[in-house]
Order: sequence, then structure tokens, then C-alpha cells
Amino acid sequence: MISNRGKTIPKSPIRKLIPYADEAKARGVHVYHLNIGQPDVKTPDLIFGPIRDFKQEVLKYGPSQGILMLRKAIANYLNEDYSLTIEPDDVFISTGGSEAVLFLMLATLNPGDEILVPEPFYANYNSIATIGDVNIVPITTSVEDGFHLPTRDKIESLITDKTKAILICTPNNPTGTVLTKNEKEMVVKIVEDNNLWLFSDEVYREFVFDGGQCSSFLEFHNARDRIVVADSISKRFSCCGARIGFIVTKNKELYETVLKFGMARLCPPTIEQYGATAGFEHRHEFLSDMIKEYEHRRNVVYEEIQKIDGVFTSKPEGAFYTVIKLPVEDSEEFVRWMLTDFEKDGKTTMLAPAAGFYKTPGKGKDEARIAYVLKEDDLRDAMNILKEGLHAFKSKN
Amino acid sequence: MISNRGKTIPKSPIRKLIPYADEAKARGVHVYHLNIGQPDVKTPDLIFGPIRDFKQEVLKYGPSQGILMLRKAIANYLNEDYSLTIEPDDVFISTGGSEAVLFLMLATLNPGDEILVPEPFYANYNSIATIGDVNIVPITTSVEDGFHLPTRDKIESLITDKTKAILICTPNNPTGTVLTKNEKEMVVKIVEDNNLWLFSDEVYREFVFDGGQCSSFLEFHNARDRIVVADSISKRFSCCGARIGFIVTKNKELYETVLKFGMARLCPPTIEQYGATAGFEHRHEFLSDMIKEYEHRRNVVYEEIQKIDGVFTSKPEGAFYTVIKLPVEDSEEFVRWMLTDFEKDGKTTMLAPAAGFYKTPGKGKDEARIAYVLKEDDLRDAMNILKEGLHAFKSKN
Repeated sequence: MISNRGKTIPKSPIRKLIPYADEAKARGVHVYHLNIGQPDVKTPDLIFGPIRDFKQEVLKYGPSQGILMLRKAIANYLNEDYSLTIEPDDVFISTGGSEAVLFLMLATLNPGDEILVPEPFYANYNSIATIGDVNIVPITTSVEDGFHLPTRDKIESLITDKTKAILICTPNNPTGTVLTKNEKEMVVKIVEDNNLWLFSDEVYREFVFDGGQCSSFLEFHNARDRIVVADSISKRFSCCGARIGFIVTKNKELYETVLKFGMARLCPPTIEQYGATAGFEHRHEFLSDMIKEYEHRRNVVYEEIQKIDGVFTSKPEGAFYTVIKLPVEDSEEFVRWMLTDFEKDGKTTMLAPAAGFYKTPGKGKDEARIAYVLKEDDLRDAMNILKEGLHAFKSKN
Repeated sequence: MISNRGKTIPKSPIRKLIPYADEAKARGVHVYHLNIGQPDVKTPDLIFGPIRDFKQEVLKYGPSQGILMLRKAIANYLNEDYSLTIEPDDVFISTGGSEAVLFLMLATLNPGDEILVPEPFYANYNSIATIGDVNIVPITTSVEDGFHLPTRDKIESLITDKTKAILICTPNNPTGTVLTKNEKEMVVKIVEDNNLWLFSDEVYREFVFDGGQCSSFLEFHNARDRIVVADSISKRFSCCGARIGFIVTKNKELYETVLKFGMARLCPPTIEQYGATAGFEHRHEFLSDMIKEYEHRRNVVYEEIQKIDGVFTSKPEGAFYTVIKLPVEDSEEFVRWMLTDFEKDGKTTMLAPAAGFYKTPGKGKDEARIAYVLKEDDLRDAMNILKEGLHAFKSKN
């Protein structure tokens, strides 16, 4: 009595090992969570302000496309920081970034259609594609190449009659890779020459390190009818539980279609939209400090990785993740063992096995994702525990 | 470049006339909104309390199934008020009631499968079914029968190999009908004998008038493996903008499947779950007054309807809606005309044309839904304006 999609939709690879972590905690073990992109960075208080001060007597339905004040604030932010010409009516507020991606897939792909996505990719894309009954065709990248894109020929060889879109996430979850200007130009040419949509997941837009330039695919004005941004305030404002995302598109036909899907769920949460508005208006007061903190953590985690024998990664360029190659056969087994059988001074470290971030069977089995979302001391301790755990795991085998 | 489902998903019939209302307002006309189920009843302050007092430093992701505190509060509420034996782990928190219905359809119906729904029905069921690529097969009911169910034979004649579920909403949106105990028993027998799911939308569970008994389909313990409740706090706590709904099921396989869909969107909004918890814990302090107020409004609107020549309705038994038969050929034309061409003392009244609540083509064209969500004085004024508008509309034709 369960549907096929109900059987095949994957459990979140990030969340499915949580019961083992819960058991470890029940035994009194402290678990460092490097497995999930839940930062310990304080939510800026100015975002809580309008939430605490919400004074309307009735907590009403808002507009299906989101409140105008927030859509204005987002348009201003994009226009000021990225020299764009976005209107409030080009912005659709979604219930989290995941709904943004879902609505884009539903609005443009028929069941059985294909969307190209560089792998490894954010695992929930798989679940969202299952809901929409669309097929993700992976563009395989590797840790040895710093997870940068293959050649145009290689990518175009994957395009079929059923391909309708390419989905890019840069700065990338789970790899931390930031696409170069040349790579972005190549992707735009591919979607133009093959009449595809380009969906750009820019949740980590500002999370670029080493002085690199932040940018949006919307800067390619000439292709703006086919380039659509999916975004979220979860990471930028460190408020994952707010469930406020958004879509930006100049394509009116797409906007109107997305709006119909939006009407089916009435509206995104009302109160958090006021907090999000304050976040965009006051972003200069906290965002650069937040990015500096993540860059520092990136340096810490990269330094610590160098100290572990047999572990390889490319230096992450942005976001707050990295995918590392481990000297084990099955990283899921190792991650589980760290929770069930290992502890050091009453503490252990949890990673996310990387196989769930790949579509190609067998890929990523010896890899894991680290989300460096903890402060320096915790991060160093967690990485040291990982080092010792890995040594113990290999000794026992 | 738009998908077929993107083209076919209907605009909300409730929301699509909003631009005409906006134009009327721009001309300075006051619009009484009887078209949408957005009550003017104050959100109980005790629900805002925990939202204002939210003290966690980081607005984090919550569990995909919702926070335990809220799931406990809902289980207690159902067990205390309806003599059930619900555990917190039988409760899944959704982002609004619409997501609850979507997840149930996705989890149990394959593309092309059928679900029986008495019509007229909540129009968003159509949109949700389009997302899931499932077909709603209408069980037609009529205003003359007070929108009560037809015979068992008539219902069973609609069942095919593809039928997987029946979706019932009682007290009903849009009709205000409350199913009798006999009707409910009949529905349970039908799902048992035909191996179907019964999805029960109980958003208006407490909105029962004239001393009628509130109840839940979960009271049919013997069929509890196939009976699933979809619910929401939007109407019960008058907080439509909170986006907190829930699913209740004793079927563990279904629960685990729904949870996987839940993981794909990470979690429902965090802060509102604390407000919802307070709402369930303190429901006795406001709920019966709220229901009394709606019963009073039902009396007012029914009394006013009697005064309008040629308008027919059955007396609504619950919820806060009624579907009325109008002496016009096309109620959508009339509703639009009321916004574009009519006003009385600078005011007009907006209804929801009923055709969008029917699946059978042509049905409901001369009907409209009234949501009696305004206080008595406004309601009487709005109904009087409707009466005069109808008279003017008929005179002109």
C-alpha cells in the first residue's frame, strides 16, 4: 500500500545515522557533529528582533509569493551587491531552499525528463527529483581535480532529448568548490546552445575565501530568460529553522508557473519573513565577519586534515564543507563505528558518508563530507579524534 | 520550456480573482473578503508568547518529524479529548495541512492512481494531486442533499483497480457539512472491504454546531492501520500564517515513508512549533469561545441568506463555510462584476466562485462559497451588499 516513489525516495544520508549518534549520546558520549550543515554561529539578533516584535493581532496567510517588503529587500540586496536589475516581482519566497528547487523541477520537467547535476551533489536533490519523478544525470567530478567541471564535450555528451536543465551549486555543498569565471561561462554557453534551463543554487553565494569574488549567474544578462536562482537565508543568516528560501527569475512564464505551485501550499511562514527582511537590510553589519569566521575554520580544518595519514582533500574554496578521501573501504561503516565503538575522553566525531552525494553507484564509498560548522577549539578536537579513530579503525581491521 | 504539470496545475480559484479586489481597493472601495478562509479572529496571545520568548541563540533545523514537545502535546490533546491512544511517534509535523495531504498522496499513490473525494472539495486538493500526478475521482454531492454522501453502491461503483484511497474532509470546507455517524461507518466499511486508505482531513474537527459531537475517524480503532489524519493548527488556533500542520497514523510503514519525504524538506518552521505546543496545552482557555463565535456567525449568515431572493443553501453544520446556489448563470462573472462594477457606500463583497471546488466539468457554475470569517456587523453589512449587488446584476442583464 506504499507507492513506488515512497519506497524509492532515499533516506537522507546525512540524517539516517542519527539514531547511532543518539545512542552514543545516551551512553554519555559527546558527539561532534561535522555531519550536518547546522552552524553553531549565532543567528544575528537583528533577525530575531522583528520576530519578537511581531504585533499583528492575527497571524494571517501571507501572499503565496511572499510579502512585498521581503521581496523588495532581496531585490535591493542583489542589485546593490551584484549590480543586477531585479524587481520585487522577479522574487518568489519559498518555504526553504528545498521548496525552491522542487518548484523549479516541477515547473519545467515532465516525469521522466533529465536534469544534469555535477556529482557529488547535495543529497536532497535526489529526494526532490524522486518527488517530481525526474532523473538526475550526474556530471562526475573528482577530489583529485578539486571537484571542478570536466570539459564542455564531456558535459554535452550527457545531453539527450529528455534533458531540460542543468543544476549548478557554487560555492558547492558538499565539496566547497567555487566554479571559475571560465567554468561559469562554459555552463552558460552549454544551456544557450542546447536550449536548457540553468538552475543555480546560490545558497552559499557569499561564502568565497582567499579574496575570490562573490558572484551570481544572474550576472549573465544575455541569458537571463533561462537562468534561475534558487536561494535560502538558512546559511547566510545562520537561521536554518526559519524555512525561508527564494527563487529569482526574469522569466515571467516561469514565475507565473511557480506561483501556481506556491498557491497549492498557500504561503511561506509569515513571521520569519519579517526577520529575513531585517537580515537583508542589515547584512553589512554581520555578513563579512561571518564569512571571515568560516574562512578561519576552513584553514583550521584543512590544516588538521594534512596531519592525518592517508586522508586527501583539495583545499575548499568556499561554502563550509569539504569532501575528503579516507583510507577505508566503506566510509559509512567507519562513520557508524566511530559512533558505536569509538570514543576518546568521552567524545567522538561524526561525518557524513559521501556515497549518498553521488548518483553513480559505487562512487564516493571511500569519501566523507566534513561540515566545518564548529568553532576552532571544537573543530581541532573533533579532527584530532577523527585522526585517532581512523588509526584505531585501521588497526582493528 | 514549461512542463505539462506546470501548465495544467490550476490557479487557486480562491486567489485568482485577487487582482480585481486589489483594483477595487486602489479605487478606494472597501472589500469584504468572504472569499477566503482567513478569519479575523485574534490569534490567542498564549500562542504568540513562546514565539516572542524564543531564547535559543541559533535558529536551528529541527527534527524532520517535528519537535518532540509538540508531538507530545498533540498526542495528549487527541487522547484526552477523543479517548485515543496516540503516541508522540504517531504524529508527524508538516509545514501546513497542505503538505500533510501532499505527503500522504506521494507516499501511497503511484502516478496515474486514483483517489475518491466527495465534491465540491477544497480546491487545493486539485493542485496537490497535480504535483503527485494522481487523479481525483469525484463523489458528487449536491446542495439539495446538504452535501451529504450518496449511497454505498454509488460510491463503490467509482472504485477501480487504480483506486488507492478515499479523502474525506468533515466538517467540510467548502460546504460546512458534518458527516453523520452512519456516513462515517459506511466510509470505514468501504475502505476496509476494498483495501483502500482513508485520509481524513480534520482541520475543522472542533467546528461542529448545534450541540453535535466532535469526533475523529481515528476512533475507528479496528481500521486504524488504514485510517490517517491530516490536520493543521491554522483554523483551530486562528494562525494560518504559522504553517504548522500534522499527520497522525498508527501505520509505521506509512510513517517511515512520510518521514523520508519530510527529510527532503529538512524540517517545518522551528519557532512556530513552540507556539503550537502552547496552543494545544491551553486549548481549553479559548477554543470553545471561538467555536461559539463561529456558530453565532453561522446563524447570522444563514439568516441573511434567507433574505435574498433566489439564493439557496442548506444550513451549514460546521467549519465556517457554506456553498450557496445563486440565481446567476456564471458565478465567476458575478463575483468579478461585484469587484469591477458594483459598490454600495464605497463597499463591496467578494465570494469564491464554486466551479473551482468541483472536478466534474460544468458543476458549481451557479454556486459560490461564503467563508463567514468576519464579525457580526461586518458580516450583516457584507451580506446586505451581496443582496443589493445581486439585484443590480440581475436588473442589468
